[in-house]
Amino acid sequence: MATFRDDLLEAGLLFDSGVDGLYYRSETFESIALGVEGRVRAAGADLDAQVVYPAPFLPRTVFEESGYLRSFPDLIGSIHSFTGGDADHARLLQLAEAGEEWSSVLTPTEVVMVSAACHPIYPLCSGRLGPEGRRFEVFGQVFRHEPSLDPARMQSFRQHEFVYVGDPDEAVAHRDLWLERGLAVLAGLGLDVEVVVANDPFFGRAGRILAANQRDTELKYEFVTEVASSDHPTAIASTNCHLDHFGEPFGIETSGGAVAHSSCVGFGLERVTLALLRTHGTDPAGWPSAVRDALWP
Amino acid sequence: MATFRDDLLEAGLLFDSGVDGLYYRSETFESIALGVEGRVRAAGADLDAQVVYPAPFLPRTVFEESGYLRSFPDLIGSIHSFTGGDADHARLLQLAEAGEEWSSVLTPTEVVMVSAACHPIYPLCSGRLGPEGRRFEVFGQVFRHEPSLDPARMQSFRQHEFVYVGDPDEAVAHRDLWLERGLAVLAGLGLDVEVVVANDPFFGRAGRILAANQRDTELKYEFVTEVASSDHPTAIASTNCHLDHFGEPFGIETSGGAVAHSSCVGFGLERVTLALLRTHGTDPAGWPSAVRDALWP
Repeated sequence: MATFRDDLLEAGLLFDSGVDGLYYRSETFESIALGVEGRVRAAGADLDAQVVYPAPFLPRTVFEESGYLRSFPDLIGSIHSFTGGDADHARLLQLAEAGEEWSSVLTPTEVVMVSAACHPIYPLCSGRLGPEGRRFEVFGQVFRHEPSLDPARMQSFRQHEFVYVGDPDEAVAHRDLWLERGLAVLAGLGLDVEVVVANDPFFGRAGRILAANQRDTELKYEFVTEVASSDHPTAIASTNCHLDHFGEPFGIETSGGAVAHSSCVGFGLERVTLALLRTHGTDPAGWPSAVRDALWP
Repeated sequence: MATFRDDLLEAGLLFDSGVDGLYYRSETFESIALGVEGRVRAAGADLDAQVVYPAPFLPRTVFEESGYLRSFPDLIGSIHSFTGGDADHARLLQLAEAGEEWSSVLTPTEVVMVSAACHPIYPLCSGRLGPEGRRFEVFGQVFRHEPSLDPARMQSFRQHEFVYVGDPDEAVAHRDLWLERGLAVLAGLGLDVEVVVANDPFFGRAGRILAANQRDTELKYEFVTEVASSDHPTAIASTNCHLDHFGEPFGIETSGGAVAHSSCVGFGLERVTLALLRTHGTDPAGWPSAVRDALWP
């Protein structure tokens, strides 16, 4: 039985790298993703958010403060390089040629892959904020180590985020605003989306408690729709109230001197693109003109 | 003495991440980079090249075949993640909290950072080519571990490449075509560029011989201009004839059954952007109208 993944590869929309969850994108796939990004940008254009384009990786020290190592160790990507001399290099090549684990000769660098698009921006906020707090629009490139044949579970993908940092009430208001706008953006592309309470995939035994607690307090909502499976809808965007999860470790204070709260909405550009290809078909030339006009005005 | 790097940070064009060579980009910086990309794309629009958007990393097996481990081990980035259970996780957190090297608990993943934009495309060419060979336009996101305070030496940057794979003569012709077109693109942006014979930064004692050989055979040319230092011009684009360096390991054959050759031109989008900021000033609003019109038609 041909799967949606087969359809995508056969249509030349994605190229298979040979590693599960790692694809190279075609011009058509990318033109859809950029169209989606344009709609998301337009939806937040009135917010006067500061635009930031982070790199695909961030400082190890920032990563250590983010709490990701505790909650999602299985998804991280730590970058290691070679810092030895000629003799160590000979050993490295010897291992590689023998088909042995050459990476044992490497040392960790100062950087780790970005796991969530908004991580890089919190260190930019350290200190006392103004009364308005701060708003960011983040063009995030994200890595998650979860090899899968589900095309919606890529190891490398983009999250387009709007982030608020400041007062607790405003953080909730930012989330509420985007619950509404997110739905409008996705419905405007002809997607049949449902908003559901969700939890992050916290790791291990302790993680089960964290996940249950996150659901009970309704901190995370996902915009879900059918992508690869009709039994298990896929989250193509989400909102998250972080409470003081970032304000505390990065020393961010509200104008009143309290620990700042934050919240974000993130649109998975690859996942929204896949949802469009699933909903409207793998040939965008045949998509409804309202969808085409929305993506490529 | 204020440096060019200071000027860039003070003007808000780049944000300092705290790690040398790792920056987050502003909307203004990015709008210049995208303008440059538009000029490069237009210069190759008649080539009917297949557009590929790789991820920032590639399969470890492809990386191992690329020869990069032998020639540039000091620049690589191997991605490691956590694959243990609850007990291992406790040990990981214990190390992290004690300020010790927690990455020792990690294991190498199937993927390595992309070190040169064109590496991902060669496995797509394995087998016998048609008489025209293959042409690619690659939107590359590259990592090189070389922390530096020279703003033109970033650890994360983009290379926009045009690649030819096929007959040896055509590979040289592709290089020659882009020596001409590259100069036209950069001169059209008001940059004072010189084309020079160059060598890659091969590692170690053996690397000195490889570098000398590369210069003697004039396989690599760089387009250089002043960016951070007037004493040492910076390469903002380059062409490279690979001979059979990729054709051989990836089993690529010409239509006549010989080992395929390849060549590429790569434009460093961040470096061309920095050259523009150095040449025309850090406020694009004041740039010559011919340059503005070329970037933002």
